[in-house]
Amino acid sequence: MVDKLSLHCGFDIGGTKILGIAADYANLGSADDFRPLAVRRMLVIEDSSAIVQSILKMVGELESECGQSFSSVGVGIAGIVDREGVLRYSPNIQGVYDFEIRSILQTELGCPVVVENDCTAATWAESQIGAGRGSRYMALVALGTGIGTGFVLDGKLYKGWNGFAGESGHMTVEQTGDKHLTGARGPWEYYVSGPGLRRLAQSAAARGDFGSAIERAGSVDAVQSEHVHSLIVDNDPRAMDLLDDFCRYTAVGVANLVHVLDPETVVIGGGLIDIGEQLVDGIRKWTFHYVLGGEYRPKVKVAAAQLASNAAAVGAGLLAASSV
Amino acid sequence: MVDKLSLHCGFDIGGTKILGIAADYANLGSADDFRPLAVRRMLVIEDSSAIVQSILKMVGELESECGQSFSSVGVGIAGIVDREGVLRYSPNIQGVYDFEIRSILQTELGCPVVVENDCTAATWAESQIGAGRGSRYMALVALGTGIGTGFVLDGKLYKGWNGFAGESGHMTVEQTGDKHLTGARGPWEYYVSGPGLRRLAQSAAARGDFGSAIERAGSVDAVQSEHVHSLIVDNDPRAMDLLDDFCRYTAVGVANLVHVLDPETVVIGGGLIDIGEQLVDGIRKWTFHYVLGGEYRPKVKVAAAQLASNAAAVGAGLLAASSV
Repeated sequence: MVDKLSLHCGFDIGGTKILGIAADYANLGSADDFRPLAVRRMLVIEDSSAIVQSILKMVGELESECGQSFSSVGVGIAGIVDREGVLRYSPNIQGVYDFEIRSILQTELGCPVVVENDCTAATWAESQIGAGRGSRYMALVALGTGIGTGFVLDGKLYKGWNGFAGESGHMTVEQTGDKHLTGARGPWEYYVSGPGLRRLAQSAAARGDFGSAIERAGSVDAVQSEHVHSLIVDNDPRAMDLLDDFCRYTAVGVANLVHVLDPETVVIGGGLIDIGEQLVDGIRKWTFHYVLGGEYRPKVKVAAAQLASNAAAVGAGLLAASSV
Repeated sequence: MVDKLSLHCGFDIGGTKILGIAADYANLGSADDFRPLAVRRMLVIEDSSAIVQSILKMVGELESECGQSFSSVGVGIAGIVDREGVLRYSPNIQGVYDFEIRSILQTELGCPVVVENDCTAATWAESQIGAGRGSRYMALVALGTGIGTGFVLDGKLYKGWNGFAGESGHMTVEQTGDKHLTGARGPWEYYVSGPGLRRLAQSAAARGDFGSAIERAGSVDAVQSEHVHSLIVDNDPRAMDLLDDFCRYTAVGVANLVHVLDPETVVIGGGLIDIGEQLVDGIRKWTFHYVLGGEYRPKVKVAAAQLASNAAAVGAGLLAASSV
């Protein structure tokens, strides 16, 4: 008789979708040999009880597919999550406040549930089986609609006093800069995100420096970050200049984190890494430029994330597995 | 027969002076009941063997005064100190590189020696017996010629991968800003430091907004941060406006640290706190303004340092005492 594995499930709840991945999280080696046992995706309905219902439905389906129930469940969710697993506030999931997601799910599921910020969960995944493996001090910088960051410090997932650490996208890097949608002037993620890349491209196009993008998009206002992306793939010289600027803006904040935290490895993740290795190469180059006294310290490693869009769900699963 | 105390000595080596304080560091309660047993001060000679000779001379004198030898010695030194206690580079002590101060002193003194960055040592002092007492997550922000910072995270002194954490004065807060003496544009300490305050005052004076300072100093170029300070003491309205601006600049960086690290307490120290409680009150007010989602999180405590200019030496003594 073969013993059943102890299975766990990780969820990633973002602004648009819920992703659930069941796996043998207690025995993962590296990102390369990660094999999910079952995967489900659903659209998010922006309402806390609808989110609970979606998770319960997905757990039911995933457990049927695996042929056994889960020993524990982990959830990574976009927003500020406190140490009790309460989603205090989410800029991504509108209208959901003080959502006691951990205790509700634990009661409904009857198994231990761990809830973390999605980026915190992704950080754990990259540190345990991804690009940060082997570094006791690492930062994940996830570039997408905004910037999410998370830290492993001295080998442990860092949460801060309330569990709100890693909101580094809101670091001011241009105190007299433009106002971001949060109302703050010049935060890092205003420049370094999908919308930031689009703004950079549109302003280059508007001043006549990015004709190739206008050609592809039809007009200045129609230029999107996807056009920049496709022009980078084609090695368009103006797109490459623009990417270099974007990498420089990114490195300003990465260097801030290096000055504050002195990590061994900074992992670059999030949707924008689909741009390819030029992005990570450019960020690395400019980070070395901005870190002070670079000649007197070992160079920080700047590496591409390895778990792509699965990182938050996998990290939540890993956290669930290590909680029991 | 009364047992002799186990005494320890802490040193602070800065850009201009060396301060040595002998005390019963293993049994300190709070800053209020801190009683040094012996104190020595010397000018720094910017040469590594002269620094070693100064320390040896001071230890000899301090031990004579205490009537016994020290069980261990701690040193806080301005600059980048690695985990082996090597001063890799110091912007404050010119011409001193890769100075193996810990191993040299340990050999010469024949007792355990601990070496840390001066601000890291000061952080430990404030966290153990000063304004950060009782907070497991705290940051020290020391405002002087530049900004020094240090962190206690989850109750432990945070050092980072190489021991270089806390160089937060070099965080970029104005990426298109003026060039600092380091060559970097718009770092936090360019705005928030003695020279930053002087620049702010001189530019207010130059545009005709700070006549009271010109009156006191004689000319725009002669306006120094000390004039601002004395006008604040006199409640001069323009000086109070200027102080509010200065507090706002300071809070930009403090809020960056709150977003990244989520500390419970931020202790404001360094020479500039002589300005008085208006400084700390202003920084607190603007920090609350800049921290995002402030209504959904407990307010960070912003408090004045309690150990004043002794903090680094006392912290080094405390670290020495806990190392043996």
